[in-house]
Amino acid sequence: MEIGIGLFGLGTVGSGVVKILQDNAEQITKRTGAHLVVKQAVVRNLAKQRTGFRQNFPITDDPNDILANPAIQIVVEVMGSIDQAYTIIKQALTAKKHVVTANKDLIASRGQELVAIAEANGVDLFFEAAVAGGIPILRTLSTSFTADEISRVAGIINGTSNFILTQMATNHLSYHAALKLAQEKGFAESDPTNDVDGFDAAYKLIILANFAFGIQPVMSDLTIQGITGLTDADIADANSFGYALKLLGVAQRVGETKDAISIEVSPQLVPFTHPLATVNNENNAVLVNGESVGEVMLYGPGAGEMPTANSVLSDLTNVATDLALNTPGRPFNSFNQNIDLAKPSQRIARRFIVIEVDDTPGAMYSVTGMFAAAKISFTDLKQTPAANGIARLVALTHPASDAQINLIRTTIRNADGINLAAEYKLFS
Amino acid sequence: MEIGIGLFGLGTVGSGVVKILQDNAEQITKRTGAHLVVKQAVVRNLAKQRTGFRQNFPITDDPNDILANPAIQIVVEVMGSIDQAYTIIKQALTAKKHVVTANKDLIASRGQELVAIAEANGVDLFFEAAVAGGIPILRTLSTSFTADEISRVAGIINGTSNFILTQMATNHLSYHAALKLAQEKGFAESDPTNDVDGFDAAYKLIILANFAFGIQPVMSDLTIQGITGLTDADIADANSFGYALKLLGVAQRVGETKDAISIEVSPQLVPFTHPLATVNNENNAVLVNGESVGEVMLYGPGAGEMPTANSVLSDLTNVATDLALNTPGRPFNSFNQNIDLAKPSQRIARRFIVIEVDDTPGAMYSVTGMFAAAKISFTDLKQTPAANGIARLVALTHPASDAQINLIRTTIRNADGINLAAEYKLFS
Ligand SMILES: NC(=O)c1ccc[n+]([C@@H]2O[C@H](COP(=O)([O-])OP(=O)(O)OC[C@H]3O[C@@H](n4cnc5c(N)ncnc54)[C@H](OP(=O)(O)O)[C@@H]3O)[C@@H](O)[C@H]2O)c1
Ligand SMILES: NC(=O)c1ccc[n+]([C@@H]2O[C@H](COP(=O)([O-])OP(=O)(O)OC[C@H]3O[C@@H](n4cnc5c(N)ncnc54)[C@H](OP(=O)(O)O)[C@@H]3O)[C@@H](O)[C@H]2O)c1
Repeated sequence: MEIGIGLFGLGTVGSGVVKILQDNAEQITKRTGAHLVVKQAVVRNLAKQRTGFRQNFPITDDPNDILANPAIQIVVEVMGSIDQAYTIIKQALTAKKHVVTANKDLIASRGQELVAIAEANGVDLFFEAAVAGGIPILRTLSTSFTADEISRVAGIINGTSNFILTQMATNHLSYHAALKLAQEKGFAESDPTNDVDGFDAAYKLIILANFAFGIQPVMSDLTIQGITGLTDADIADANSFGYALKLLGVAQRVGETKDAISIEVSPQLVPFTHPLATVNNENNAVLVNGESVGEVMLYGPGAGEMPTANSVLSDLTNVATDLALNTPGRPFNSFNQNIDLAKPSQRIARRFIVIEVDDTPGAMYSVTGMFAAAKISFTDLKQTPAANGIARLVALTHPASDAQINLIRTTIRNADGINLAAEYKLFS
Repeated sequence: MEIGIGLFGLGTVGSGVVKILQDNAEQITKRTGAHLVVKQAVVRNLAKQRTGFRQNFPITDDPNDILANPAIQIVVEVMGSIDQAYTIIKQALTAKKHVVTANKDLIASRGQELVAIAEANGVDLFFEAAVAGGIPILRTLSTSFTADEISRVAGIINGTSNFILTQMATNHLSYHAALKLAQEKGFAESDPTNDVDGFDAAYKLIILANFAFGIQPVMSDLTIQGITGLTDADIADANSFGYALKLLGVAQRVGETKDAISIEVSPQLVPFTHPLATVNNENNAVLVNGESVGEVMLYGPGAGEMPTANSVLSDLTNVATDLALNTPGRPFNSFNQNIDLAKPSQRIARRFIVIEVDDTPGAMYSVTGMFAAAKISFTDLKQTPAANGIARLVALTHPASDAQINLIRTTIRNADGINLAAEYKLFS
């Protein structure tokens, strides 16, 4: 059986897809029974040189060359953007073509609409590559934890930020030097906002939370904090307490009866002994905690041409299987339920807190008074010698809620000579 | 739709399965559309008290109560043993019942026969729980790497050995003290042979190699070395060079054209910076290297009542899906090919070598001469002060083949006053 593929996009991921389809054609046919053949690619700039793969298919800039081509059964959307990609995927699904996409922004924002359109048209819509590049986390969540109650899904799901934090920690680079290195190595774009401010991780976390809990969060449901405010001193202090500082996406059940979900992207302190702490540089990892299974982690490359293309291929071979068995049209994740979002008082964790305070008599007394008033108590405390008349106080606290932290933030903001320089959760 | 389940075995795994089916019944029905109901359990000893789960099904000791029961569509075999389990599973498959088993010994030894019987009868045969307990590695290999060429599958796949090695390394216990602790904690059986001699890992590696490479190795194809000969001095020396000592199962393509497969279970030195080095105590991890995907690792609990039961449940829900779609009868892994086994000369790795030598003039000269003759050269060398007139020489070598190592072993065996106390590969 021959299956025709139409590619939107021949950039990093698109050319990787072409390479695998060409290099591993024999194996793919042997294992799926299908010949997967690229029939057409659509790009933006026809003048661009395309190298690195044999090109035995036409390239155009007209979406209709794919959408109206009856020889194409599967559309692979690896061009990016939300609106244009939405329109194209919707048209493809409506034309009863299966769709594979790597577009996290789109799936996080309008995935549910597209899933409904796919179902209505009896076609597949898969997007394994949209979360954590080469790591097969979505298919795993949808096939291997169906009978378990997941309590948390958490991960290092932005390779750019993790590269920067790793370089800051191990090579003692400043944030800006580490960002520059990431850009030189191709791990960060010239405008890194999407990565370092946590938005990219937030998109992926929305998709993970949907698969793990059946909920459909939107961006405004998430607390999002990036890594731009993070200093090498914060990292050194976290390390000295036995923790790595990592940008995490965490979606978890909270509350006495575990009936609310907290979703946030933020830098957190991870104990050196925890497997997440060992995930370095551009690598990603997703941790799943289930009532039955306990703690499982999937680790691997979070991006890159070939790993990401491999995830697209895993979707393609699964469409091929569905075609062979005549079973397409089932949603990638068919799990839907309503769970409330957590209130700040339900989001409880130990904290790492850095306070800068004028080095005057009684200053420390007033700081500790503020924390006592917010009922936040310390487990570890470290004061380093004052520089420029300012003392740096680093503390780990007992569990405290976001509500308590909001209170202390307000108190400190209204006080003179004291500044809350950093506040991060401890992951456990 | 109600699906009737018959359980062979109500021990650790069996009672975990009952608990999940009872506790998560609503969620399972919601997500699979099926009511999974235990109709019958068969055990060995009817007199035994069964606690920890509500028992609303009959228990007998007659296999026919399951095999001849038309209300049972799925047989779960979690009783262990090879011959009896083979007979029962064969009968079940022939009676057109789907089978889920956790029995690694059986699947490694006679899996192919059973797969053929399942296919011929159009029923499912799944065994996710047989490898690495709660880690969903088999389903991942069969659905997410179909289009990739896997070059290596390797892992820490015996929790007992890993617990012992972790305790030796971190708490400086002797092998025997660590084994005793493992037994007290329920991580090792009173007769630990199967685990510490590497056989349990070998069974799992055979199944992993089948899924990764489509080959069907038998036990005698494997090089198997356990951890009983390993000393705390070996571990300390490995650590001092920057490596952890781990019992690994490794199946990989070797040779110039990567056209041969080496399969072995042995203690190996893993760099502290490698994710496998951070897998401690009873945990397991499986590493997959693919030409496209690069390096992916799945980490989690390698055994235990609930994690293992969760893997059985993932198989059950997949049978339920196949029943709903009318698509059962496809082998769990349908990938078959012939690849030669590697020759000793193709099995090349750096080595960690410990030599005990009489502390006499010229002894070191004669040792280095032996290695020079075998064309094995050192990268690191450490001699510790002689105790009882015996010097301990610890070395890391440049890459050397098993053929070269066999040669040096023979040379040393035939020489006086020198003993090859340890020889382990470096994993990279
Ligand atoms: N790169 C990764 O590692 C990675 C990992 C996971 C997910 N993703 C996702 O995969 C998608 C593609 O990423 P990428 O890195 O491959 O991007 P890229 O290298 O920038 O390539 C984008 C491709 O799409 C084409 N294109 C862009 N807009 C188009 C339009 N309006 N109409 C037709 N073609 C258009 C471009 O054409 P020209 O070649 O003519 O410019 C180019 O070939 C994105 O959604 C991204 O988030 C990427
Ligand atoms: N335990 C783990 O963590 C784990 C992990 C992965 C795979 N597995 C595999 O799962 C299987 C079960 O392990 P387990 O730890 O649950 O074993 P277990 O605790 O020893 O339980 C075995 C059960 O099978 C029953 N049984 C034994 N022989 C039988 C026979 N001939 N006929 C009928 N019933 C029989 C026993 O009956 P009685 O109760 O009357 O004695 C018992 O209920 C094994 O294949 C094992 O390798 C176990």
